Amino acid sequence: MKLPGQEESDISSASENVPTGELDSGPGSGLSPDGPLDTDSRELEVPKDPPLFIQLNELLGWPHAPEWKETGRWVLFEEKLEVGAGRWSTPHVPTMALPSLQKLRSLLAKGLVLLDCPALSLQELTEQVTRVESLSPELRGKLKALLLQRPQHLIQTPCTSPCWGSAHPREASQEEEAPLKEQHQNPLRQKFAAGAEAGAVLAGQLGFLEQPLGVFVRLRDPVVLGPLIEVPLPSRFFCLLLGPPTLGRGYHEMGRAVAILLSDLQFQWRVRRASSLHDLLAALDAFLEEVTVLPPGRWDPTARIPPPKCLPSEHKRLPSQLRVAKGPSVRRRTSAEDRHGRRQHAANPELRRTGRLFGGLVQDVRRKASWYPSDFLDALHPQCFSAVLYIYLATITNAITFGGLLGEATDGAQGVLESFLGTAVTGAAFCLIAGQPLTILSSTGPVLVFERLLFSFSRDHSLDYLPFRLWVGIWVAIFCLVLVATEASVLVRYFTRFTEEGFCALISLIFIYDAVGKMLTLTHAYPIQRPGSPTYGCLCQYPDPGGNESQWTSTNPKDRDDILSMDLGLVNASLLPPPECAQRGGHPRGPGCHTVPDIAFFSILLFLTSFLFAMALKHVKTSRFFPSVVRKMLGDFSSVLAILLGCGLDAFLGLATPKLMVPREFKPTLPGRGWLVSPFGANPWWLSVAAALPALLLSILIFMDQQITGVILNRAEYRLRKGAGFHLDLFCVAVLMPFTSALGLPWYVSATVISLAHMDSLRRESRACAPGEAPSFLGIREQRLTGLAVFILTGISIFLAPILKFIPMPLLYGIFLYMGVTAISSIQFTKRVQLLLIPAKHQPDLLFLRHVPLSRVHLFTAIQLACLGLLWIIKSTPAAIIFPIMLLGLVGVRKALEWVFSPQELLWLDELMPEKERSIPEKGVEPEYSFSGSDSEDSELMYQPKAPEINISVN
Amino acid sequence: MKLPGQEESDISSASENVPTGELDSGPGSGLSPDGPLDTDSRELEVPKDPPLFIQLNELLGWPHAPEWKETGRWVLFEEKLEVGAGRWSTPHVPTMALPSLQKLRSLLAKGLVLLDCPALSLQELTEQVTRVESLSPELRGKLKALLLQRPQHLIQTPCTSPCWGSAHPREASQEEEAPLKEQHQNPLRQKFAAGAEAGAVLAGQLGFLEQPLGVFVRLRDPVVLGPLIEVPLPSRFFCLLLGPPTLGRGYHEMGRAVAILLSDLQFQWRVRRASSLHDLLAALDAFLEEVTVLPPGRWDPTARIPPPKCLPSEHKRLPSQLRVAKGPSVRRRTSAEDRHGRRQHAANPELRRTGRLFGGLVQDVRRKASWYPSDFLDALHPQCFSAVLYIYLATITNAITFGGLLGEATDGAQGVLESFLGTAVTGAAFCLIAGQPLTILSSTGPVLVFERLLFSFSRDHSLDYLPFRLWVGIWVAIFCLVLVATEASVLVRYFTRFTEEGFCALISLIFIYDAVGKMLTLTHAYPIQRPGSPTYGCLCQYPDPGGNESQWTSTNPKDRDDILSMDLGLVNASLLPPPECAQRGGHPRGPGCHTVPDIAFFSILLFLTSFLFAMALKHVKTSRFFPSVVRKMLGDFSSVLAILLGCGLDAFLGLATPKLMVPREFKPTLPGRGWLVSPFGANPWWLSVAAALPALLLSILIFMDQQITGVILNRAEYRLRKGAGFHLDLFCVAVLMPFTSALGLPWYVSATVISLAHMDSLRRESRACAPGEAPSFLGIREQRLTGLAVFILTGISIFLAPILKFIPMPLLYGIFLYMGVTAISSIQFTKRVQLLLIPAKHQPDLLFLRHVPLSRVHLFTAIQLACLGLLWIIKSTPAAIIFPIMLLGLVGVRKALEWVFSPQELLWLDELMPEKERSIPEKGVEPEYSFSGSDSEDSELMYQPKAPEINISVN
Repeated sequence: MKLPGQEESDISSASENVPTGELDSGPGSGLSPDGPLDTDSRELEVPKDPPLFIQLNELLGWPHAPEWKETGRWVLFEEKLEVGAGRWSTPHVPTMALPSLQKLRSLLAKGLVLLDCPALSLQELTEQVTRVESLSPELRGKLKALLLQRPQHLIQTPCTSPCWGSAHPREASQEEEAPLKEQHQNPLRQKFAAGAEAGAVLAGQLGFLEQPLGVFVRLRDPVVLGPLIEVPLPSRFFCLLLGPPTLGRGYHEMGRAVAILLSDLQFQWRVRRASSLHDLLAALDAFLEEVTVLPPGRWDPTARIPPPKCLPSEHKRLPSQLRVAKGPSVRRRTSAEDRHGRRQHAANPELRRTGRLFGGLVQDVRRKASWYPSDFLDALHPQCFSAVLYIYLATITNAITFGGLLGEATDGAQGVLESFLGTAVTGAAFCLIAGQPLTILSSTGPVLVFERLLFSFSRDHSLDYLPFRLWVGIWVAIFCLVLVATEASVLVRYFTRFTEEGFCALISLIFIYDAVGKMLTLTHAYPIQRPGSPTYGCLCQYPDPGGNESQWTSTNPKDRDDILSMDLGLVNASLLPPPECAQRGGHPRGPGCHTVPDIAFFSILLFLTSFLFAMALKHVKTSRFFPSVVRKMLGDFSSVLAILLGCGLDAFLGLATPKLMVPREFKPTLPGRGWLVSPFGANPWWLSVAAALPALLLSILIFMDQQITGVILNRAEYRLRKGAGFHLDLFCVAVLMPFTSALGLPWYVSATVISLAHMDSLRRESRACAPGEAPSFLGIREQRLTGLAVFILTGISIFLAPILKFIPMPLLYGIFLYMGVTAISSIQFTKRVQLLLIPAKHQPDLLFLRHVPLSRVHLFTAIQLACLGLLWIIKSTPAAIIFPIMLLGLVGVRKALEWVFSPQELLWLDELMPEKERSIPEKGVEPEYSFSGSDSEDSELMYQPKAPEINISVN
Repeated sequence: MKLPGQEESDISSASENVPTGELDSGPGSGLSPDGPLDTDSRELEVPKDPPLFIQLNELLGWPHAPEWKETGRWVLFEEKLEVGAGRWSTPHVPTMALPSLQKLRSLLAKGLVLLDCPALSLQELTEQVTRVESLSPELRGKLKALLLQRPQHLIQTPCTSPCWGSAHPREASQEEEAPLKEQHQNPLRQKFAAGAEAGAVLAGQLGFLEQPLGVFVRLRDPVVLGPLIEVPLPSRFFCLLLGPPTLGRGYHEMGRAVAILLSDLQFQWRVRRASSLHDLLAALDAFLEEVTVLPPGRWDPTARIPPPKCLPSEHKRLPSQLRVAKGPSVRRRTSAEDRHGRRQHAANPELRRTGRLFGGLVQDVRRKASWYPSDFLDALHPQCFSAVLYIYLATITNAITFGGLLGEATDGAQGVLESFLGTAVTGAAFCLIAGQPLTILSSTGPVLVFERLLFSFSRDHSLDYLPFRLWVGIWVAIFCLVLVATEASVLVRYFTRFTEEGFCALISLIFIYDAVGKMLTLTHAYPIQRPGSPTYGCLCQYPDPGGNESQWTSTNPKDRDDILSMDLGLVNASLLPPPECAQRGGHPRGPGCHTVPDIAFFSILLFLTSFLFAMALKHVKTSRFFPSVVRKMLGDFSSVLAILLGCGLDAFLGLATPKLMVPREFKPTLPGRGWLVSPFGANPWWLSVAAALPALLLSILIFMDQQITGVILNRAEYRLRKGAGFHLDLFCVAVLMPFTSALGLPWYVSATVISLAHMDSLRRESRACAPGEAPSFLGIREQRLTGLAVFILTGISIFLAPILKFIPMPLLYGIFLYMGVTAISSIQFTKRVQLLLIPAKHQPDLLFLRHVPLSRVHLFTAIQLACLGLLWIIKSTPAAIIFPIMLLGLVGVRKALEWVFSPQELLWLDELMPEKERSIPEKGVEPEYSFSGSDSEDSELMYQPKAPEINISVN
């Protein structure tokens, strides 16, 4: 027995016949067609082959009632007919036994191969394929009749009631060649673009044959072969594998092998261009060179492998001699490119310094101006309507939550009404002029934290908050304009994942801490009635001169036992609850009058309800339940639904839970102020200058928050065509600052999560995709209209604000907690912290664990934890307000880490800073690849579609 | 290029050279060795080959500093050295490219093959393998020196700090042949049983060679080759693959190929017996015949496949000609056996009718008597101690929960103290005499439901409960003895999964409904204080003659407004809380005196705490976190921990939540009764006869509950050696009934879940297992001592009962809900109900979905739902007590289903009833296999280790 390739390719001469120049320049032009997802421009010269649908019709029931039945089909993956269940299996990676391929090869080698067969109908084709010497004329006739028999197809209609294409197999008359009605109605048909072709494989055991019969036909012009294929596609290939029953299921397996071969893009490419039997067999041998082999004792050959998330790139498929001999050096480049492509800092032309004052801004304006008309025309697509609805709901949920929290943090200096107004006005303005109009402006976590600190600072120093805040806003605008002028946005490249994660983790932790803290505070406002506490100590006393009111006031209320045991001696008193008592002119008296029972625990329940319900709904999105539309809806609107549920529960029980404060009419939340904030108020004049100091801190924060979001949104994997506008975006944010400050509205910067959701709702994807294949991402509908519409709707919703007063605050705290937990769960840092708890044996197969020693990973995590601890301590001191500087300090810590970790370790755990990044090609930062070539094993992980790793703005 | 097997095996003569007789009798004796897990007795004649550890040492760093480094190792699966991370990868299924195997074959064919080489040391071996013609003496010397160089091993100690076996590669002197200290300390060594052997593969590129060098050595006597192998095992195989750098990574890939080949049991078996190069190549070709092939465009060859849960049986590996030609017919038998083996009703000799009165009982006693001494001796194993602790905690948790619930259901006629006492006494007695001493007796869900119904019945008819119950117990004993005498236990074969699931689902739903219902009832007992409700309406009035007490009593308390607004006109009153008021001689007066605020919501919180915490801890068991011991502990004790957490929370807040009622001393919970129940009490004499009616119902229930549990426990997959004792078990339960009834203790039957946990904690597993391989199950330590110890401990714990009064009832309701939810989630019925919500496209690849049309699956589910609905309706009517008969009615419904569904559909969705089961072989119930052979594709699913599907007793 000989092995494939034994004669031709000797080990010592494996790569002899390949020109060396080709090794790095990619596959030889005549050898490797392009995959469907590949966008390499060099390959565009080769016209793409049409997609191919392959169907296996099996001959069953011989000798009693022979009939053809479609038992398998392939586009990219295999679908098998579940005979008993009458359904198609889930698509899976096709596997086969090597002998089937061997037998197929020898059968084809001896069989009939017709390339460019001119047949124009099934009838003609049948004539051609039965012209085999070994068949007697009688057998030929029998075979022809059999081939013309109409096959059974299982056609699954979307209403999930499968119908058999031909429930009672009829002997088809020879005229019956037109495709059938059910073929045209097959919903599978919509999956194929125009020009798609079919391949028909007919296999089975046929008693009257004495020798196996193998026929392979490539039709010159693809033609619809009557009812042969379940979808009325023109057939290009036809393969017949019949024989005596000695081989049993062997024909079925050979039929599968042909189908699997034809579904392989490279084999297909070669066979379309084959001019002889030799070419066909060479294509088969080339396929064999590339197959992956699983050992029999370790892998059940019948196990069905689900389709991988991402197909291996056809681009990487080289002739195997090259792969074995020179593979790693060729692959390393691709792999390294992948890795560096993870964050396209250096590649972003928007982040290249011009050296002129406002140079970046001018460039941004110029670039975006040319796209401006298309920014409105591109919005004319129905998808944009659903995007508007989705983002609108998300935006007002955000406005309610942040408005409510801001109102509480600033004792009502701002509130929900300001939040709505500010969101609508600034958002709409930003959409109209910004560099990246897909960005949704929002009051984000970091700014909220800062505002809370600023408010408590001004309260502690008895300042008039809003005028003070106005000057802070003005100074921030000035600082930000300086940053725009000096093109400071290019510095964003120094914000590596280490900085982002520190930023995100701190803010998330503050969210979680605050949410829980606020709930505990509620239990002080609404104390729990423990046994012995003065629950019942409240009387309603009427101002009757007969009573001795002085007795009440003279008693020291701290001495509880005294109060409880004293004699009342009152006559004009009742047990009316305090509100009713006051209404009737009485005075509620007693230690228990201000306690409202049950509120504390009910608030905790509401808090848990909104948190757990939002978490659960978010997970519905990735579950199997419900059609994907419903699932997506439930997942996307998880917070809205959680709030609605909580409101319903609260309304049902009708308890006096603390509610969101909303003014009854359209006026600022703070009673007594107009919309315009007075420039000085009760503050001394010099405070307008001193405001520059907190403004400096806020500028750092806004710069970091805005630009990190900007970088995430403009990542290469989103394939934005119209470019980013980092300088222009920061300019817009700066210009809006004095405006919002003057009106006492919240401050706004770009919000990562909601902007990503906006982009996600505008994804363009390939519509027709093969079963089992994930739709491929084409790009984003970049335009300004959806954002504009969202903010106009938000503006209109201001008039709906009064109904918001039915929302209990604990619900919003729950959503707050949900945001914090979601944000902190999304970062790699959290995964690494979890690694500390996972024994090495059970650790997931993470890419960085393959390349960095575990102790170094833990050290990196420990340093991050220490930084976070330090930040937390600072945040808890009176110096809390300087935390933006400390966040900036993370960049310094990251720089210092270069002394502790090797560049290679940092590359895996974080990413490289600009100088180091440039040094990689020269210095050869990755010595390990030079001998072990282990990066070739990471390719599957590298293929994973990139998802936003970070949730920086906690919104 | 030729394909393997092309010359030798022609398609038409594929199975010619195989004797037909061998097709069904298994693999030919000279061809297929047995897998390590296979227990086929016929194969025991062949002495088993020792396990083989294969290590790949790669030559790296040529030409500057050549050194050997272990970069891969194999036992069953592949572990790859992660060079950068300095750790071993997770074990994965080895994959390779076909050309590597081809190149290896041609290299070996031209190379040096030494079979039964007499070398006794690495030095001698080196001499032998370098005796190649093509090498000049100088090169030979260089090569020898290189081969003697000590290789680097990465030895991972359990403390997760990996150490390099030889951090600085030293040139080993030629004497240095003894294994090193770190080799002996290698923890991997413990994985290997005595007699294990090693195979060393050395591969790499070596500049001074002009031609590739391939050497394969089988040593006559395995010998420890110094520091070559990381574990000091004697080496049997040695393979050297070196060559000029033209092939690059090709040598590494060939080395992997050799290692993968050697790790294949059949290849190994053949090579151990090979007598020539030809045999070696034939073994390689035989391997190739069986490999599974994955197409290149659909599968990334570098993806690591995690080890399958269950390895394919070596027994199923036939020479591939057979597999293609005759495979299905051979496999079908195995597969069908698997399927029928799922429930071993017919095969159970214990369930065969003898036809004599008490014949089954006598047989049971005889069978068990012979094992009786060993039932105590077999317990002498440390594993039994941990089993006792675990089951003890589970048992008292059960006793507390069920005791508490029973106490509430029967208004304190029984309680926790009775539950402890009854569990201890009956459990210990059962362990001593029962047929299946691994069974744990418990008050289970169905009996609890019945007892509740019986109590409300006797309360509605003003009966004296305990005496009435005594007679019910006596009658049940009589009926059960009749069932034992008539060998009724054999009827258990008619309880198919349909019946079990109906039983389980009903009880689970009652649990869930009751748990939620009890919580809602609590909100009536502790009303929520809505605004306007009379929270504050309570005064403490002292019986001073000056007050006009009559005013209070004369007012109609229903007119709330009047009460609230009336004038008090009292002088001797205070705001003391009611308990203190009463203590000081006053009377609490007012509508709000009996309300305790905050209790309702706090109870709901406690309820949610115990439910969610228990659920979460249960999931920890399957997570990656913590070492497996901790994980198992947390998962196993989830309810105990949830109860403890809840108690802590309750104690911390100190609220007056309703607590478990426990008498202060050792006396019955019902005040005023002695331990012995009077036979008639206040009941008329004829009630003792009338009790036979409810007793009949209870007997049905106990019979079903006991026997279904018995069948589950005695399933074949648990490999019990000592046999079951269905009749003896029922006899024991019957005898204990009058005893527990007379003392007023709960009734006990076998409990599925806790008994399965008992068995699980006594599993015997193979200790040494290869990386990535799950330990194989050897059996259960069947003995009576662990159960006895558990119940003795439970008996002692009675004196700890008083501390149980700190447990709040809502916690127990939460555990109750947890039990219900867990039980109902465990049955296939629930999975099928979920299928109704899952679109066909996203449905999981369940076995029955492959074989039964979806509409039929849904119909079956709908019928089950309808039955359940009917049962629920009956349960809600006054006729609720007859529900055991309706449960029995499920058997009838199942029988009627044979008119609706085909036997084949029932086989997949349920299982066959006795008559039908017998008819399968004759009638050929599975027509689909006759043509599609699709069952061969189910094998992987069939391999899944069987887990108890059902959680019948809800305990």
